[in-house]
Amino acid sequence: MKAIFLCGGSGKRMFPITEDKFLLDFLGKSLLQRQIEIAQEAGLKHFVIIGNPSNMEKVERIAKSIFGARFEFALQEKPLGIADALRSASPFLQGQVLVVNPNDVFSVSAYTKIIAEAKKAPASSYVLGYQVEEYFPGGYLEVNSQGELQHIVEKPKPGEEPSNLVNILTHLHNDPKKLLQYIGSVQTIRDDVYECALDNMVKEGYKVKVIPYSNFWAPIKYPWHIFKVVEYFLDSAEPYISPTAHISEKATIEGKVILGDNVKVLENAVIRGPVYIGANSIIGNNALVRDYSHIGANSVVGYSTEIKHSYIGDNCWFHSNYIGDSVIDGDCSFGSGAITANFRLDEENVCVEVSSSKVDTGRDKLGAIVGEGCRIGINASLMPGVRVGSNSFVGPQVCLRRDLEANKMALLEPQYQIWNNETRLAQGKRQELLQRLSD
Amino acid sequence: MKAIFLCGGSGKRMFPITEDKFLLDFLGKSLLQRQIEIAQEAGLKHFVIIGNPSNMEKVERIAKSIFGARFEFALQEKPLGIADALRSASPFLQGQVLVVNPNDVFSVSAYTKIIAEAKKAPASSYVLGYQVEEYFPGGYLEVNSQGELQHIVEKPKPGEEPSNLVNILTHLHNDPKKLLQYIGSVQTIRDDVYECALDNMVKEGYKVKVIPYSNFWAPIKYPWHIFKVVEYFLDSAEPYISPTAHISEKATIEGKVILGDNVKVLENAVIRGPVYIGANSIIGNNALVRDYSHIGANSVVGYSTEIKHSYIGDNCWFHSNYIGDSVIDGDCSFGSGAITANFRLDEENVCVEVSSSKVDTGRDKLGAIVGEGCRIGINASLMPGVRVGSNSFVGPQVCLRRDLEANKMALLEPQYQIWNNETRLAQGKRQELLQRLSD
Amino acid sequence: MKAIFLCGGSGKRMFPITEDKFLLDFLGKSLLQRQIEIAQEAGLKHFVIIGNPSNMEKVERIAKSIFGARFEFALQEKPLGIADALRSASPFLQGQVLVVNPNDVFSVSAYTKIIAEAKKAPASSYVLGYQVEEYFPGGYLEVNSQGELQHIVEKPKPGEEPSNLVNILTHLHNDPKKLLQYIGSVQTIRDDVYECALDNMVKEGYKVKVIPYSNFWAPIKYPWHIFKVVEYFLDSAEPYISPTAHISEKATIEGKVILGDNVKVLENAVIRGPVYIGANSIIGNNALVRDYSHIGANSVVGYSTEIKHSYIGDNCWFHSNYIGDSVIDGDCSFGSGAITANFRLDEENVCVEVSSSKVDTGRDKLGAIVGEGCRIGINASLMPGVRVGSNSFVGPQVCLRRDLEANKMALLEPQYQIWNNETRLAQGKRQELLQRLSD
Repeated sequence: MKAIFLCGGSGKRMFPITEDKFLLDFLGKSLLQRQIEIAQEAGLKHFVIIGNPSNMEKVERIAKSIFGARFEFALQEKPLGIADALRSASPFLQGQVLVVNPNDVFSVSAYTKIIAEAKKAPASSYVLGYQVEEYFPGGYLEVNSQGELQHIVEKPKPGEEPSNLVNILTHLHNDPKKLLQYIGSVQTIRDDVYECALDNMVKEGYKVKVIPYSNFWAPIKYPWHIFKVVEYFLDSAEPYISPTAHISEKATIEGKVILGDNVKVLENAVIRGPVYIGANSIIGNNALVRDYSHIGANSVVGYSTEIKHSYIGDNCWFHSNYIGDSVIDGDCSFGSGAITANFRLDEENVCVEVSSSKVDTGRDKLGAIVGEGCRIGINASLMPGVRVGSNSFVGPQVCLRRDLEANKMALLEPQYQIWNNETRLAQGKRQELLQRLSD
Repeated sequence: MKAIFLCGGSGKRMFPITEDKFLLDFLGKSLLQRQIEIAQEAGLKHFVIIGNPSNMEKVERIAKSIFGARFEFALQEKPLGIADALRSASPFLQGQVLVVNPNDVFSVSAYTKIIAEAKKAPASSYVLGYQVEEYFPGGYLEVNSQGELQHIVEKPKPGEEPSNLVNILTHLHNDPKKLLQYIGSVQTIRDDVYECALDNMVKEGYKVKVIPYSNFWAPIKYPWHIFKVVEYFLDSAEPYISPTAHISEKATIEGKVILGDNVKVLENAVIRGPVYIGANSIIGNNALVRDYSHIGANSVVGYSTEIKHSYIGDNCWFHSNYIGDSVIDGDCSFGSGAITANFRLDEENVCVEVSSSKVDTGRDKLGAIVGEGCRIGINASLMPGVRVGSNSFVGPQVCLRRDLEANKMALLEPQYQIWNNETRLAQGKRQELLQRLSD
Repeated sequence: MKAIFLCGGSGKRMFPITEDKFLLDFLGKSLLQRQIEIAQEAGLKHFVIIGNPSNMEKVERIAKSIFGARFEFALQEKPLGIADALRSASPFLQGQVLVVNPNDVFSVSAYTKIIAEAKKAPASSYVLGYQVEEYFPGGYLEVNSQGELQHIVEKPKPGEEPSNLVNILTHLHNDPKKLLQYIGSVQTIRDDVYECALDNMVKEGYKVKVIPYSNFWAPIKYPWHIFKVVEYFLDSAEPYISPTAHISEKATIEGKVILGDNVKVLENAVIRGPVYIGANSIIGNNALVRDYSHIGANSVVGYSTEIKHSYIGDNCWFHSNYIGDSVIDGDCSFGSGAITANFRLDEENVCVEVSSSKVDTGRDKLGAIVGEGCRIGINASLMPGVRVGSNSFVGPQVCLRRDLEANKMALLEPQYQIWNNETRLAQGKRQELLQRLSD
């Protein structure tokens, strides 16, 4: 059986994160590598990876670093959806294929369950249906009493769902050539060609079995979905302190903590796990890192900085900051006193503007999302949910209330006036204050 | 002998503190309860408490929680002064009565002294006279050579005081019915009916003995008077660490410290007494609480926060703040980096505007006074002596220079402009900086 | 042999530092005293110090505190250069004289080398030539093959230097009377009379030997040159902890550290040497002082403050600040949250405006230069390289982007508006948050 990984798409809703989601690192490995390893755990050994012109090289490099698997690579020229991706890989689609979206994170049981079902219950295709407990804005699976797919309903309104089963792209097909034929004959300008093809197969009598699944599932659609993925991988990992890590005797390491090679933890720093810290990073004096935080490699969490429940990339520098519930991509610096607000004064959920409409993030605690290569000036304030495009500067003391596009600078306007200072300071006051302090 | 507690008044000068002064908690008990207990210590067992429509319920609840005392409750419909209060309680005024203002804190010796004097020196009434060393803006007692009251002079100008004895409302009357008669015959529209009645009694030959007193006395007229009361109760209390408090081995507890039930003190926190911390409160990593600070219950003094010589109510949250010489009422939150300035740049005493005239607080160190239920945004600055009315928001990065009324929001105006960022950052700088750091 | 110390000049480029450079204290002693002691180490015992009307008294006081040396004092009325200074001291110039600029710091070997050379190689005068490896904006020495001075070239353009030898004012003259004659006959309105005199002597056949020197040399021309001098003296000093210093057991002292009398280091403070802390200073809880920092006497580095690679004078107060790569003269206070930015967002070298032209400081890390007696308000931000004139105030939350003259106040303009607060906060949120925190 071949696993078909769809890596050719693009994530419009991920602004300001420009990297493909499956290329983000979690605990020192790209998500793609982790996904392949999860599939390997379920016994899969043969992979077809469909990349695009801008990520093909990285995808190949990652694949080649993995042992015990065989890879074929297909190029999808443009991000035109699942059907187009499969067409791009058609020379490699033969025998049983398991089509997977590597931006959705699920546990190995998703694989084992669908594979086991395919062995015992004869059908043309098998699709995973995630059992949701509340409304989720996705495609829903209409199923008959035998658990067979009747129809895929794209984004029904809340209350109009045909079932509690959401379509997850973990689909096993026994005859991919047939599937490609059906794909070929769909007439639509919409982007659900693949789903229409499946629907048509069902209509013409092909049996598509729905496999209910309720273990871990975390789709990454928006940047704040990264938190759940960090939580999952931290919960799954074992604690580990590299033998080359250097931890001051006056530092505190508590709970499940993973420290990479050459990590330094200075005096009075506190790391309260679950927390991951990548290689060569420094946790400075009196810093606090806690609550499912993930810090990449070569980063410096300087003096008196708190990182709480945040995802930090590689090569980031912090200095006397508070970074809470934030996603900070690689190569960013925060000047001393720069702060991410992660809770609205009115204590409501944080909303984000996407394509000029408001999206409720569902989170009452959400800090900033900062793209790659940004600089945040001293004493700057980033409002909850604000997004800073890559390679942008937020000037000192700017209170950033709206998203900033990539390659911009938000700079303070003149804000002070100069006067003559007529004050005569009292003599001896300092001495008196020092005395009071010593009393 | 009955103690008559006047709880029906209102404290106009306490803005933004809306709670009655005697209902403020000190070290876990309301001031009223503490006052009753002080009176009990002096042997008093029978109390008449005169409340008003809005506090009667609370007053009764407090009284009923106290053992070993008998209570009668009288309702004063409007806050019309001492004479009106006593009229409201007239059915209960019989035998010897000791009229007390529970917003003035004094030591038990004020009671014992006046009671002892009443036993040995026959007179109609006895009033406490506080021996001041410098001018105090209150009523002064004119006394003859036998220590008998001649006249009460309301707020004389400095230099025109008839004595150094200030009238404290701790007055013992042997015949309250007679007093009520005199009160009834005063013809005035001013608010000093009670003082006029006393004056009239003196004029008509009743002997009113003045008892000089110089122990602790702290009237609460303005919010910053709360500090002295905290100091008094902390000085009087014994150190105590609840057995359910949890103190990290890496925390420092020094001096006289009182920690309530379930208090948590995290790593590298420092508490330098005298300090009181109420039940369930958390003192976070690297926080510092010092110098006669009082923190209520269920409060969180988060990471890297300093609380210095401040009174904090219940349910307050702090996070990387400096709170110095401030009064923060219950249910307030301070965002990360919000700071109270507690010392003017010109090092002068802090003044406050009350009814459009400036009041010198007499303090060179005074921070903010924040009413109940406020939210202070990240990186906000509160200027010395500034007062924030209850349920108001001070937005992020606002530098609040003037008092803010209740139920308002002070929000930053637009303060930055956006430019294209043409900067080309040098390659390899980060690596070089990391190297320098390691050198 | 007499050492002639030129202390009569003025340092225009040192704004906002108003004190004469040689009167600045380093590790508890004035630079002048250190310079005299260095000369003593080389065997010099007789000093002529040329002061000016405003520093003569201080200069004499310092000289008189030094043992084992003989002093003569000459008054230079106006700062008119080297030639004028020597003329002012002419009665004292006899025998061999070694003319020295005490604002240039060099090691004792500069003296020993020139003295040794004067003993073995007969010449009229000897001048030290500093061997530079890259262009330095100073006077260059043109030398013949015998190492004899041909000509002094003032500030040649880069690439036009006649040698790699920069003229340092450590000049030994065997016949000062002759030198004074030549000085007297120079006809110029420029300020290089002394150099012209030397040139003329060379032209007329006097032999002036150039002594190449490549050990430590640090001229103090701009305030940021102070850093190198601090580094030099710290590197030369022995670690020392005064027996009256009080260091908490929970503090960390690492590397070479000098703590003066009565210094207090509180819990969780970290001092990472090389660092000097003057007498009576306090390093507060959780503070960090590191990286060649120099803190004067009677200063308070309060709670949660970081001082990194900075020169701090006496009587300074800090409180939750970051002071990096900065020079802060005596009697300054920084309010809580005030920060010096020490690195540009674009990571370029910091430039400073001197006499309306930009001077590249050559440093990518440079904070603020603050004159004596300044007050910096809470949450203020000082931009890299900004200079604050003495006795000036920078108001709270001001982001100071341009130099501020002496005796000024930079105050924030109105920046917020007030609105009604219609928010209804959800009940029970706080309890829920406290619960989440405990989970």
